[in-house]
Amino acid sequence: MGRLAEVTDLERTAMLLAWDQEVCMPAGAAAEHGELRATIGRLAHERFVDDRVGELLEAASPRDDVEADVVRTARREFVKARRVPGELVAEMTRAAANARGAWLQAHEDNAFAPFAPFLERNVELRRELSACFPEAEHPYDPLLDDFEPGMRTADARAALERLRDGLVPLVAGVTETEASGLEVEGDVPLPEAGQRALVRVVLQALGVDDDHWRLDEAAHPFSSGITAGDIRITTRYHEHDLESLFSSMHEFGHGLYEHQVDPALARTPLGHGASAAWHESQSRLWENMVGRSAGFWRWCLPHAQAALPGYFSDKTWQDVQRTFNVVRRSLIRVSADEVTYGLHVIVRFELELALIEGALPVADLPEAWSDRMRSYLGVDVPDDRQGVLQDVHWSEGLFGYFPTYAIGNVIAGQLWARLAADLSDLDERFAAGDFAPLREWLGEHVHRHGRRLMPDELLARVVGGPLDPAPYLAYLERKLEASAQLMA
Amino acid sequence: MGRLAEVTDLERTAMLLAWDQEVCMPAGAAAEHGELRATIGRLAHERFVDDRVGELLEAASPRDDVEADVVRTARREFVKARRVPGELVAEMTRAAANARGAWLQAHEDNAFAPFAPFLERNVELRRELSACFPEAEHPYDPLLDDFEPGMRTADARAALERLRDGLVPLVAGVTETEASGLEVEGDVPLPEAGQRALVRVVLQALGVDDDHWRLDEAAHPFSSGITAGDIRITTRYHEHDLESLFSSMHEFGHGLYEHQVDPALARTPLGHGASAAWHESQSRLWENMVGRSAGFWRWCLPHAQAALPGYFSDKTWQDVQRTFNVVRRSLIRVSADEVTYGLHVIVRFELELALIEGALPVADLPEAWSDRMRSYLGVDVPDDRQGVLQDVHWSEGLFGYFPTYAIGNVIAGQLWARLAADLSDLDERFAAGDFAPLREWLGEHVHRHGRRLMPDELLARVVGGPLDPAPYLAYLERKLEASAQLMA
Repeated sequence: MGRLAEVTDLERTAMLLAWDQEVCMPAGAAAEHGELRATIGRLAHERFVDDRVGELLEAASPRDDVEADVVRTARREFVKARRVPGELVAEMTRAAANARGAWLQAHEDNAFAPFAPFLERNVELRRELSACFPEAEHPYDPLLDDFEPGMRTADARAALERLRDGLVPLVAGVTETEASGLEVEGDVPLPEAGQRALVRVVLQALGVDDDHWRLDEAAHPFSSGITAGDIRITTRYHEHDLESLFSSMHEFGHGLYEHQVDPALARTPLGHGASAAWHESQSRLWENMVGRSAGFWRWCLPHAQAALPGYFSDKTWQDVQRTFNVVRRSLIRVSADEVTYGLHVIVRFELELALIEGALPVADLPEAWSDRMRSYLGVDVPDDRQGVLQDVHWSEGLFGYFPTYAIGNVIAGQLWARLAADLSDLDERFAAGDFAPLREWLGEHVHRHGRRLMPDELLARVVGGPLDPAPYLAYLERKLEASAQLMA
Repeated sequence: MGRLAEVTDLERTAMLLAWDQEVCMPAGAAAEHGELRATIGRLAHERFVDDRVGELLEAASPRDDVEADVVRTARREFVKARRVPGELVAEMTRAAANARGAWLQAHEDNAFAPFAPFLERNVELRRELSACFPEAEHPYDPLLDDFEPGMRTADARAALERLRDGLVPLVAGVTETEASGLEVEGDVPLPEAGQRALVRVVLQALGVDDDHWRLDEAAHPFSSGITAGDIRITTRYHEHDLESLFSSMHEFGHGLYEHQVDPALARTPLGHGASAAWHESQSRLWENMVGRSAGFWRWCLPHAQAALPGYFSDKTWQDVQRTFNVVRRSLIRVSADEVTYGLHVIVRFELELALIEGALPVADLPEAWSDRMRSYLGVDVPDDRQGVLQDVHWSEGLFGYFPTYAIGNVIAGQLWARLAADLSDLDERFAAGDFAPLREWLGEHVHRHGRRLMPDELLARVVGGPLDPAPYLAYLERKLEASAQLMA
């Protein structure tokens, strides 16, 4: 257990270095910090894949249930980590660093072609990685497993096909009025000081305290659970939208998950959220299911009016809720609304699957992208920057990660249905500014388990069944209906 | 060299964790962060004292002068580190943690007796540590060597006796007017916003840029050179004094040293300042020799007037300079002026020497403290809190560190004399807000060498001789004379 605690400490230190780099580090020190991060990351890996760890895990006789779960999880990860040669790991890191640079340039130049060879190399190396697991049913399985332990490609594909087939007609049915929408934020500026005040009030009501949390600014908002008692979230402020609020609530969802993990799991490999999708289920739940709900805005409106009178003073909570639920067929994933978002993700999932299968040559990617965007979302992609080049993920070698965004929403939908059954007055509680029942329910049913259960076991435990997009689709349909009524 | 680079990265990461704990960490996460720091610190130690490092150092054939210096220094440190049993190191850490807690309580209760057994244990363990080096001339030598590599107790004692014998009559000769002084800061409040603005202007003029530096607040100001390109200093703001400015300049001196180390020494054990005293020479030089000089205030006054008009608007630079150079016989080291400061340090040095020699029982420490304060500074110690309990150092097991404060001033005096010879118009440059010549001179003659030279070699190289308090005493005498003239 001592060695695993050491590895955990190293991983958490690496997380702090990463946070520091985004939030504190003076810009001129990037290369030097890269060395620190590389050393800590390498040590965390070396100290884990070491022969000695294998012997210890082999010989381990757990004293209790937690230790049994630690040993089982560590064995699984040990076996997986030992299968991948160190040279391949190093080469993936190198290739990703090169591809990241090439992507930045290609993005600036709005030209996919110069980036293609770098992306090809990333794909090639992921295929080599897959080949280290010849028993896998599908070459994408080992990649997906890094983010969703135990999930097979077939499971993800089945769930996301059902999600897609539900979303496409929903999105197609969005009326012109809804699609063109109200001016979401319009031309009234939202002064940064007011946004900061509002974010502070909201986070405090959700459950953030200075003893265990901090909020900072970052170019790309993210959340770091350095330890369960040290949760750091970030946001950003734009004068013409309220992204600061929704991104804070999103990162709060991630942070709360880490904060409410059972303290008994500290310094073990189990002291984090169960998987990437489970994490995303929490962030999306707070951002959307809470943050765009009627109850939330009934409570929040007076605070928003006090903080940002220029924008909010002449609005009702119904106006505001409608504004923040407008549906738009658009090109960019990160600014997509709740209804269309899943389709953006599914486009990426299907394409990366085809890349890894070898069914789609990298050169054909932009066209395949445009085709799918047209057929799923009904939009025309005018150029690479607004198309295939918009996300950094593939340049960093992240394959297997995109589907977790959509699966996270699916899980959030299942949780929300379960929550509605357990806590019938949730919306009224929100309207009273009381988020404790939701926080506690999530802590009790989801968070405290950390990674003790496999993601599918956790789901079965909480909602009584496997991955199922139906509740999420039903939630979106109800929203669209309510929104249509609000418009009438 | 790879292993040494790894150890360096671990040490620098530990430094970042320490900085984070003081500046960023939410208060409730202290225990969890303690674990991270302990793990990183332990790994840095383990990865260095490892047999393999010994073999590599044995077999090393340096390719150039830098590598030769690296190997020489690392061998010296390796031999020293291997002499101390791991259990003793662990026991010293434990005892210091206990003593630190006991000191906090004793300080609050203003009672030395309950703290005495903890201090005794710390002393006992330091004597055990000394005993690991039976060849040492004096039992204090191995302790001092941790902070001043190569310096013998006899050298420190000789220099500080000469300093003491010069200071005692100087301080005794301070007239009643000087001693009671002007009201140093008086009752006019110095608003924090104005202090921040002034600190910013001054640091920028000294050479701080956002690309490589950051300034934060901390309860006890300190400086961290995370890497040469990432210098983090801290200060604190009190409404009724200008400590913020002088402490910023002090920490700037430490930071500049780390910042100007030759980049070729990055990721080696040589990439820091030469010793604790050398570091202190730099901080005291910028805080006092620059920050209390006529030239500095001729330049700074208009900035101070713009930032803090309530206090500065009706003052001349002569008023201000006199105010910040008032001499007072007082009880507390950290707020002592430049002239009396050395005597506060010498009291501690002489007493800790007697403790380690076994000549002074811990129980007799408060009385010995009072005696020396009376005989050197002419003040009566009313209680333990304003006496022997005022510093945290001994509770943390820091023995061998206090003398470096005074030796730092001695070195600063020698450097200042040398500087005056090389750069005759320094005061005029300061009056023009031009600190580049001083910065560059220090970079060229001191900073760039990092730890390539032993502290005494560096001193011989820069000033052409050994440790000598005469220039520092002469500098203080000139100051007192100038001040007497200003008063007349």
